[in-house]
Amino acid sequence: MLPELDVDDAADVLEFLDEDEGAEIAANLPVEKLVPLLDEMEPDEAADVLLDLSPEQSAAALAHMGSADQVRPLLAYEDDTAGGRMTSAVPVLRRWMTAAQASEYLRTFLSDRETHYYLYVIDRNRKLIGIVGLRELVLAAPAARVEAFMSADVISVVADVDQETCGQLISRYELLALPVVDRMGRLVGVITHDDLVGVIEDEATEDIYALNNVSADSDLDVFSPLRMMVRRRLPCLYANLFTAFLAAYVISQFEDIIEQVAVLAVFLSIVAGLGDNAATQALAIIVRGMALAQVEFRHARRAILRECVIGLAHGVAVGTAAGLVAHFWRGNAVLGLVVGVATLGNLFAAGIAGTAVPLVLKALRLYPALASSVLVTATPDILGLALFLGLATTYLPYLT
Amino acid sequence: MLPELDVDDAADVLEFLDEDEGAEIAANLPVEKLVPLLDEMEPDEAADVLLDLSPEQSAAALAHMGSADQVRPLLAYEDDTAGGRMTSAVPVLRRWMTAAQASEYLRTFLSDRETHYYLYVIDRNRKLIGIVGLRELVLAAPAARVEAFMSADVISVVADVDQETCGQLISRYELLALPVVDRMGRLVGVITHDDLVGVIEDEATEDIYALNNVSADSDLDVFSPLRMMVRRRLPCLYANLFTAFLAAYVISQFEDIIEQVAVLAVFLSIVAGLGDNAATQALAIIVRGMALAQVEFRHARRAILRECVIGLAHGVAVGTAAGLVAHFWRGNAVLGLVVGVATLGNLFAAGIAGTAVPLVLKALRLYPALASSVLVTATPDILGLALFLGLATTYLPYLT
Repeated sequence: MLPELDVDDAADVLEFLDEDEGAEIAANLPVEKLVPLLDEMEPDEAADVLLDLSPEQSAAALAHMGSADQVRPLLAYEDDTAGGRMTSAVPVLRRWMTAAQASEYLRTFLSDRETHYYLYVIDRNRKLIGIVGLRELVLAAPAARVEAFMSADVISVVADVDQETCGQLISRYELLALPVVDRMGRLVGVITHDDLVGVIEDEATEDIYALNNVSADSDLDVFSPLRMMVRRRLPCLYANLFTAFLAAYVISQFEDIIEQVAVLAVFLSIVAGLGDNAATQALAIIVRGMALAQVEFRHARRAILRECVIGLAHGVAVGTAAGLVAHFWRGNAVLGLVVGVATLGNLFAAGIAGTAVPLVLKALRLYPALASSVLVTATPDILGLALFLGLATTYLPYLT
Repeated sequence: MLPELDVDDAADVLEFLDEDEGAEIAANLPVEKLVPLLDEMEPDEAADVLLDLSPEQSAAALAHMGSADQVRPLLAYEDDTAGGRMTSAVPVLRRWMTAAQASEYLRTFLSDRETHYYLYVIDRNRKLIGIVGLRELVLAAPAARVEAFMSADVISVVADVDQETCGQLISRYELLALPVVDRMGRLVGVITHDDLVGVIEDEATEDIYALNNVSADSDLDVFSPLRMMVRRRLPCLYANLFTAFLAAYVISQFEDIIEQVAVLAVFLSIVAGLGDNAATQALAIIVRGMALAQVEFRHARRAILRECVIGLAHGVAVGTAAGLVAHFWRGNAVLGLVVGVATLGNLFAAGIAGTAVPLVLKALRLYPALASSVLVTATPDILGLALFLGLATTYLPYLT
């Protein structure tokens, strides 16, 4: 249907579609239909489409595009870096311009497509030396020079910086746009407001997925192709299967005890399940703290010590409840004690594992949310089960 | 230390602190120190501080504040609604103003504190009738009337709307600010850019917490007071203890079988653990889809049907692996078959539960992420355990 629309609308549609759908449609368009569409799109959006095409299609389209010079540099950056998120169409001013000249320049530059609320001031080498808000331009006397009302204090990022860092800067300094420079400090693009919210949302989506055992990729959504959905969730299920077999191996070491006191099997899943839950809690809180740049490795000692206290409090509260229920249900005080103490030990270990593992991953410059509950919960689970069955072995005569 | 700083800096510090710390400091300041601080703060921030004070302190401070008239209306709204997030200091224009008059007005209105990129046009009843971007104002001829270059197409929210809806509007329409009106359509405030990113981040934090078994409140972070931390995590642990005892009850019905074939206890936790994991995955994806306004109840049929296919695929893939390992480990093909089929059934049920429960909660106008894994995983866990132990009972002669 797309070729029937006029170029303007078709470009809007293509920008609006999500990446997979857009790529599929673009791949099926003939080059002579695709080129005017790409020219009409913002350079950063056009680059995203080109990156999803085959190298031959991409090269053929670029060869005919009027905006090829703006789009080509954007192809060099990974999708989830500052360079991949930026657009290269930036309104730039020079320090010697007057406010009137700057306004005049803007009138020719500003399209109705992407709106720029900050204007960047560059020197003759394109080095970023200042920033002017639209607001300052409104307020400036027409004859005032840009250098008189620009601010030399510009927050910028280098193009290969991860988008998570961009999101943190945007959030901390409440920015409307973030200029992107190369290693020499030369302005190469800007992440505009319309992309900023997307950056922040994509980062949150990735964390939510990683914490909940889905491959951390914000491309995935409820209606992603079934094959993609199955493939993105399978690795974590297999990882979980592996850790579950480790736990099963621990249990198998106590098979003769279970044969004598089958009721132990009834309580195994209680001890394991609670540790899972507590580890997930600690994990979610610390990973979110890192995403919002509130927590770093230097806080590790304090965070872990705090989690010891919390784990102990939860262990006592929940362990007592679990022990009492076990006691009154089975009429065996020793069984209650064993269940209670194992729960306490499990919750204590869970909090520490949930906090320490992501901190260590962060220190190793790995993605902290990788410590998805599958990996973190294995340790307390196995410790909890061993503690439970070990205690049961010790007090075996009192359990039957 | 705060009273030693000059008012400007102290107000900045107070705005920067998080809510708990800020409230504690404010509560300990004498009224005559607090009032100038609150007057210096943005009305929305001052209102947040006042809401955390005791009613007497709050009333005493309000009685002396110069900005009391701006702050008082903000006290009427819940923290997490549009009204609670907005500031009441809005630059407003009238349709008959010229661009030059509008710019002149702005020069007197705009402080260096909070920046407004949109100006709102109201009629004589304060009804919101239009919007002018700073950009349009820059581009307009000085003598042009506001009505000639304003846009009458304004996206606004009513003050008691939940902040999640605000976040979705901001994201969908790429807004820099969102005007807030009362039920009569009269402008009462604006959610400015500096609050928008916070709204989006807080919503993501709440979802991450709820999905990972922590009370959904973005106030909580790694270094929240220990008592608060323990209390916010305990309810989910108790809920988990309850569902774990339900599962334990199911297992207890098969105690005599386990006594005969203790190896069943070894595989119990594998079946249960995998269901947990699969349910969490489905849950995270659909809850995120709802948060980003991609999924609604009318998609329920399609989403659940898809999840049936995915659950079946995962069930076959992981069930086969689990069955094969069980078979070769214990040298019993029937045991492998029972483990495999129970895993398949569990993963199938897990995907459906993880998808259906949040959709139903949404349809009931409840918070979909409430379906935290504790509640959603109980069903497939119990089904999976019953299936596993039921099959084991049927094929008991082949298992020993």
